[in-house]
Amino acid sequence: MGPATTGILDDLAAGLTGGRLVVAEASLEAYRHDFVPDPDAGRPLAAALVTSVEEVRHCLRWATRHRVPMVPRGAGTGLSGGATAVDGCLVLVLDAMTAISIDPTARVATVEPGALNIAVKEAAAAHGLHYPPDPGSFRISTIGGNIATNAGGLCCVKYGVTAAYVLGLDIVLADGRLLELGGSTIKDVAGLPLLPLFVGSEGTLGVVVGARLRLVPQPPPAATVVAVFSTTRAAGEAVVAIGRTCTPSLLELLDNRTINNVEDYRPSGLDRTAGALLIAQSDARGAAAAAEAETIAELCRAAGADEVHVSDDPEEGEALVEVRRMTGPAVEVRGALLPEDVGVPVDRLPDLLTAIEAVAAELDVEIPVVAHAGDGNVHPTIVYDPADVAMVARARVAFERILALALELDGTITGEHGVGRAKRSALAAQVGDDVLEVSRGIKAVLDPLGLLNPGVLL
Amino acid sequence: MGPATTGILDDLAAGLTGGRLVVAEASLEAYRHDFVPDPDAGRPLAAALVTSVEEVRHCLRWATRHRVPMVPRGAGTGLSGGATAVDGCLVLVLDAMTAISIDPTARVATVEPGALNIAVKEAAAAHGLHYPPDPGSFRISTIGGNIATNAGGLCCVKYGVTAAYVLGLDIVLADGRLLELGGSTIKDVAGLPLLPLFVGSEGTLGVVVGARLRLVPQPPPAATVVAVFSTTRAAGEAVVAIGRTCTPSLLELLDNRTINNVEDYRPSGLDRTAGALLIAQSDARGAAAAAEAETIAELCRAAGADEVHVSDDPEEGEALVEVRRMTGPAVEVRGALLPEDVGVPVDRLPDLLTAIEAVAAELDVEIPVVAHAGDGNVHPTIVYDPADVAMVARARVAFERILALALELDGTITGEHGVGRAKRSALAAQVGDDVLEVSRGIKAVLDPLGLLNPGVLL
Repeated sequence: MGPATTGILDDLAAGLTGGRLVVAEASLEAYRHDFVPDPDAGRPLAAALVTSVEEVRHCLRWATRHRVPMVPRGAGTGLSGGATAVDGCLVLVLDAMTAISIDPTARVATVEPGALNIAVKEAAAAHGLHYPPDPGSFRISTIGGNIATNAGGLCCVKYGVTAAYVLGLDIVLADGRLLELGGSTIKDVAGLPLLPLFVGSEGTLGVVVGARLRLVPQPPPAATVVAVFSTTRAAGEAVVAIGRTCTPSLLELLDNRTINNVEDYRPSGLDRTAGALLIAQSDARGAAAAAEAETIAELCRAAGADEVHVSDDPEEGEALVEVRRMTGPAVEVRGALLPEDVGVPVDRLPDLLTAIEAVAAELDVEIPVVAHAGDGNVHPTIVYDPADVAMVARARVAFERILALALELDGTITGEHGVGRAKRSALAAQVGDDVLEVSRGIKAVLDPLGLLNPGVLL
Repeated sequence: MGPATTGILDDLAAGLTGGRLVVAEASLEAYRHDFVPDPDAGRPLAAALVTSVEEVRHCLRWATRHRVPMVPRGAGTGLSGGATAVDGCLVLVLDAMTAISIDPTARVATVEPGALNIAVKEAAAAHGLHYPPDPGSFRISTIGGNIATNAGGLCCVKYGVTAAYVLGLDIVLADGRLLELGGSTIKDVAGLPLLPLFVGSEGTLGVVVGARLRLVPQPPPAATVVAVFSTTRAAGEAVVAIGRTCTPSLLELLDNRTINNVEDYRPSGLDRTAGALLIAQSDARGAAAAAEAETIAELCRAAGADEVHVSDDPEEGEALVEVRRMTGPAVEVRGALLPEDVGVPVDRLPDLLTAIEAVAAELDVEIPVVAHAGDGNVHPTIVYDPADVAMVARARVAFERILALALELDGTITGEHGVGRAKRSALAAQVGDDVLEVSRGIKAVLDPLGLLNPGVLL
């Protein structure tokens, strides 16, 4: 770092009164990439650990003045390279801005971007209220990151994704301007709908520095259904039938490989020979939950389930949801991973599941699948040994093959993780050149110098 | 119309093979404004009654080539001047594009923009499915207009607004390019979220020429609660309490003036002395509907309701919802109208209702109120005699006063009708200059010549 750089960094540090600047190379390692190590991640110039909106504005003004690329970062739990450093960038670390305040009468949570999703849930629960969005990472991911990726989760099949809960957003633009969008009103159509343009924009248009989130009454305890199928196709067909009939509050699918991963990781009494497992819940009121669970069970039987179990014991239900949540750690121990996040129209789900199995067999790679099945959102995870060059190559082919499959089935390359860097090259095939051109035009309005999260999404 | 104009109109007409061009001044009267007569509406050069996406593209290319302003139009049922002609414009009339196809397995309706909302509901119902958004105009308004305004309605308190149901959009830009956004997948975060930028953009960014809409299973028959209160404040407080506890599928408020309008229009057995009436429904499954209705009834009693009636008879419930729907025609016969559509955070609803009554008393104008109370979205309608100059002036003051009230209470000038021309001057006070500047920048990316719906929203 030369004296010129030190000089401009002094300017930057001077504006951080509550926060601090990290410049030591070893310390900066922690800020180079998200949950999936990216060998191409750059080396930041510095990381600013900010504590206030004014500090964020100061950092962005500074970066714009000195033409320094900026990479906003929450907890770094992303899976698509949406918080990957570029050489010489400033990483803007927002995880110390964690304030949450609940207005129980308005049913609104006002939160800083670094607040964890689970902390918002807990703060709401103290007032008998609930913040539904529940990405797999909800215990460790921040609201700012959830908003930047429009995160989904298990409950979305009934409650919708993050975008459905963002009433107001405070955004700092690259030049340091503060945009206050929306408010605490449930319905608001005043002006162009800019707010949803930022929800899912992956830090490329501005930095989320505050949000007002809609809360709902705490749902009643859920009734749970577990159904065992001999094939993923049969399980997929059950999902289609369930979606036409009722609205479960959770509808997840685990394939045979995932079931075995879980049993290897922490034995949970699952049938290792099952082709697929469906876990469904109903949180309808009172006796309606058990009735809806019974309807779901009937539809599973009609679709050919070998075994169906219904429980209205909330603890048993929670244990089964924990089995679903364990699929993440259970696959992480198996090797290096290429996580996928494709989505298809719900009726194409059986075809997609079958086709993914064919890809795994043909390319001889492990591809355990879990799915937010009710939404048609499927997570095949390609497992490979990084020391096996041939297998690495096959894994990459499988990754591309599955993206192509999703598009052939009128689906999407990403249902909830985002494009990041991992899927940038696949985006044009899905959305087309005109959409990309318009997207670049809008990016240029908000970030004319192209300094915000360069290389991500566009 | 000079020979030069006739020449360019020949070009325009030549591209309308299924549709036709209207140029006679008398016939063009029908295309000058929406449901609220606007004395400042301009005189169109022509109206193109289009029948296909290609015809729309032809018209927009033609208009761009000749720098002719374009005003897209569905059924013209808007209430804020969002489809008002300007002098020399081309009105693009989309109400003949009415095709609807239902994919019951994917649970998706593919619709042309001129399809009526009710026609989509009926087509979905034939497959046991449901399209929830239900603006007051649902029997006569088009899906294209619903999307352009992000229309709300009665069921939004549980089911959300139009934006929650738009999975895919086909948009023709001013230069004739066709943008295909989203698809039939429920969750999709591939690329910048452009789709929601168009939902509620009031025809200023592009023309909706097709949509894929998410359908849900038909809800069960609803249980209904009617509660009579001596004041709107008490009714408002009941609404706040209900929202903290459960999620009714409908929660509407009628004030004393509205009750009397309905009784004058079509006697319905309402108590003319009541300060306010709440109508609530629960469409929870089976016995849960009656249980939830009873919870709502309890909360109404606790908030001081004088009388509460619960019914699980669907016909009686439907009759009560029809009473609510009758408030529109019942106020239309009372004089000239300035319809309002303000919204506030739900906890401010009692204050807003009380303050509106004070405005009516102080200015001596009739302001009957109905509200999508559960969402904090309030429709005060200012009634005046256009022949009474002093009253016209007082009505305009009341209109501005209520907009200001909504902003003082951290609310919005429009919850579901849109800004249009009626509220354009009030927009800056709500969103601020930076938001307007960014909005204009985005408008310039999509419509660089400013030809689409000029004078609306921005």
